Amino acid sequence: MTAMDAGHAAALDAADPLASFRDRFVVHEPELVYLDGNSLGRLPRATAARLRTVVDEEWGGELIRGWDHWLDEPLRVGDRLAPLIGARPGEVAVSDSTTVNFYKVAWAALEARPGRRALVTDRDNFPTNRYVLEGLASQRGLEIRWLEGDPIEGPKAADLGPLVDEDVALVTFSLVNYRSAALADLASITATAHAAGALVVWDLSHAAGAVLVDLEGGEADLAVGCTYKYLNAGPGAPALLYVRRALQGELRNPIQGWFAQREQFSMGQGFDPVEGIGAWLAGTPGIVSLAGVDEGVALVAEAGMAGIRAKSVALTEYAVALHDAWLAPLGFSLGTPRDPARRGSHVAVRHPDARRLCALLIGRGVVPDFRAPDSIRLGLSPLTTSFTEVRTGLAALRELAAD
Amino acid sequence: MTAMDAGHAAALDAADPLASFRDRFVVHEPELVYLDGNSLGRLPRATAARLRTVVDEEWGGELIRGWDHWLDEPLRVGDRLAPLIGARPGEVAVSDSTTVNFYKVAWAALEARPGRRALVTDRDNFPTNRYVLEGLASQRGLEIRWLEGDPIEGPKAADLGPLVDEDVALVTFSLVNYRSAALADLASITATAHAAGALVVWDLSHAAGAVLVDLEGGEADLAVGCTYKYLNAGPGAPALLYVRRALQGELRNPIQGWFAQREQFSMGQGFDPVEGIGAWLAGTPGIVSLAGVDEGVALVAEAGMAGIRAKSVALTEYAVALHDAWLAPLGFSLGTPRDPARRGSHVAVRHPDARRLCALLIGRGVVPDFRAPDSIRLGLSPLTTSFTEVRTGLAALRELAAD
Repeated sequence: MTAMDAGHAAALDAADPLASFRDRFVVHEPELVYLDGNSLGRLPRATAARLRTVVDEEWGGELIRGWDHWLDEPLRVGDRLAPLIGARPGEVAVSDSTTVNFYKVAWAALEARPGRRALVTDRDNFPTNRYVLEGLASQRGLEIRWLEGDPIEGPKAADLGPLVDEDVALVTFSLVNYRSAALADLASITATAHAAGALVVWDLSHAAGAVLVDLEGGEADLAVGCTYKYLNAGPGAPALLYVRRALQGELRNPIQGWFAQREQFSMGQGFDPVEGIGAWLAGTPGIVSLAGVDEGVALVAEAGMAGIRAKSVALTEYAVALHDAWLAPLGFSLGTPRDPARRGSHVAVRHPDARRLCALLIGRGVVPDFRAPDSIRLGLSPLTTSFTEVRTGLAALRELAAD
Repeated sequence: MTAMDAGHAAALDAADPLASFRDRFVVHEPELVYLDGNSLGRLPRATAARLRTVVDEEWGGELIRGWDHWLDEPLRVGDRLAPLIGARPGEVAVSDSTTVNFYKVAWAALEARPGRRALVTDRDNFPTNRYVLEGLASQRGLEIRWLEGDPIEGPKAADLGPLVDEDVALVTFSLVNYRSAALADLASITATAHAAGALVVWDLSHAAGAVLVDLEGGEADLAVGCTYKYLNAGPGAPALLYVRRALQGELRNPIQGWFAQREQFSMGQGFDPVEGIGAWLAGTPGIVSLAGVDEGVALVAEAGMAGIRAKSVALTEYAVALHDAWLAPLGFSLGTPRDPARRGSHVAVRHPDARRLCALLIGRGVVPDFRAPDSIRLGLSPLTTSFTEVRTGLAALRELAAD
């Protein structure tokens, strides 16, 4: 039996300590090969039940009295999420979208460095981040310095030298690149930015729940991230927002809403924000979806990030091996770092005909994502993706490409 | 039989053409007198079923393929909501919180009037609006001119004269005051502001689904509002955002997110927003809660705003009559306009001991809201509140206050 045989995938599944977690999720079509859990994670069974309770019992039954406990949810869920990304209690809030949270923290970083006239990011940063930054730069008359690195390699501290100087207020990247899965070195990039006096915002969207993130150890300043990817919180569920405790008294949230107000329900005159991460809330949080974050986070915590990362590496290693054996001879190239230490939990395979092949795959019951211009992105979600699924999916792609 | 008799309330209920709508909502405790539907509307039965479908079938079953139709939801639900507030198709989006939407449109109005150094609002505007405005004013070096009117009367065009001049960029009020229920005259205030070249933002939170709103006829520029009050969309459901069509090409959304991007999934370089109201979206919308807005709006549309307004007036008239007969002799005063044409759908009764009485009422199974310093706010939600409930609630309050 070679590594390419079906028996090998079955053996990997049999030896997978997280294999049983798949049963904790709703699976409507057992034959569906779902390789897009990095775009929208599957529905945990506990979440289906919990959301029913929140809707039917809490909203329907408690009515306004539900706010007695709902008010605490954005920070309670944040505290629960914190250890998954190396943050401490009181450093994470869950509310609003990733885009709105990115706007808040990027604005705050720029505001905290008055007189500095530039910010640094890369062309391969996730589009919403680039667009928000373009807006902020235009509003504030700032220059965006684009790091023109190799997208498969991702941003590197060594390449930042020429771009980061005392005129830079903000350096911001995705920790895991949404297309190539390149995993940046949080600590070294942060240190390089700090040496020039800049603040750093990390987007953890493709990292949280998939790779080991150490915000505290890496001395990160600010971070945001989606919860509907590897945290399996549901479509459009509220996003995470992290502010390092030491910065919480210094940085300001541009959107001064009532959920950040001390004694919110005295509804007094004059904005007087709470201390701590609560000051980064704005309006009324989406209570139903927040419960989905709570359940998704609980499941990841139960599995443990060490085991999740180990499975993720094994899944991506397997996908890379299958690419090399089956796809490279058909004109594919790998769009993802070969070193697992520098890779998140998805694998991009590139082909000039990727768009058409991706559509054909979906028609065959294999669901990856197409990412322009030429990537098929295989999201390997450690709690739900099996090695057999990876093999089945790549076998289908080989067959279609060989046609 | 006098108007105060239980038989009179029963007769009003028997003659109520909207009485049957109460059966369209989940009611866990039939004896509960719920007078807080203006803070959190009840759960429609259709919503409980719909959210189950969205979670279990769409998220759980369609997975990422759900985005094929979810992408359209913020504007589709906006179009469905539009006629309830006198807006046209393509003028309303539903996404983000009211606070975030208020920030977007207030920022946009200020940005569109460069050189003007002031904005006008009132001390009795909803707290989150005041706090957001204080933030924007501080960030931009603007003066806030506070209209110091009578909160029971609410803002009036005639009082704006001394405050609104060519230095004012923005005038903004709540259409229905959150405490007193004062209903402002949208058209005359808007015209006064326009005469000075200012833009106007209306907060419809306590108006949408309760009073007749004519954004088009009143020549409103911008509006926001909650969906979880009289639209019964659920706790923290996404909020509405209105931009008059004629202004859509001129005003800019400060939060440039990917949901506003033309060809969003080409993920190209450079923010290039869609035309129209879609440019006011930002990040990924909360899909589960959006379905709740859709159902809540459908129910209000089915009942019809004319009938809803008529029932609302009848409910508030009845509450005022009971206040006058039962509560005024016990030291209460009315905190709400007496003219139903100038009143929204809640009634505030004021008493020095309001906080304690409100807590006692809740203990008795009557749920209003306390609003500092001295108001008990009785929210009369036309689709779910009965005349008998109003009578039972005020009878309980009379009994407690007479103790």
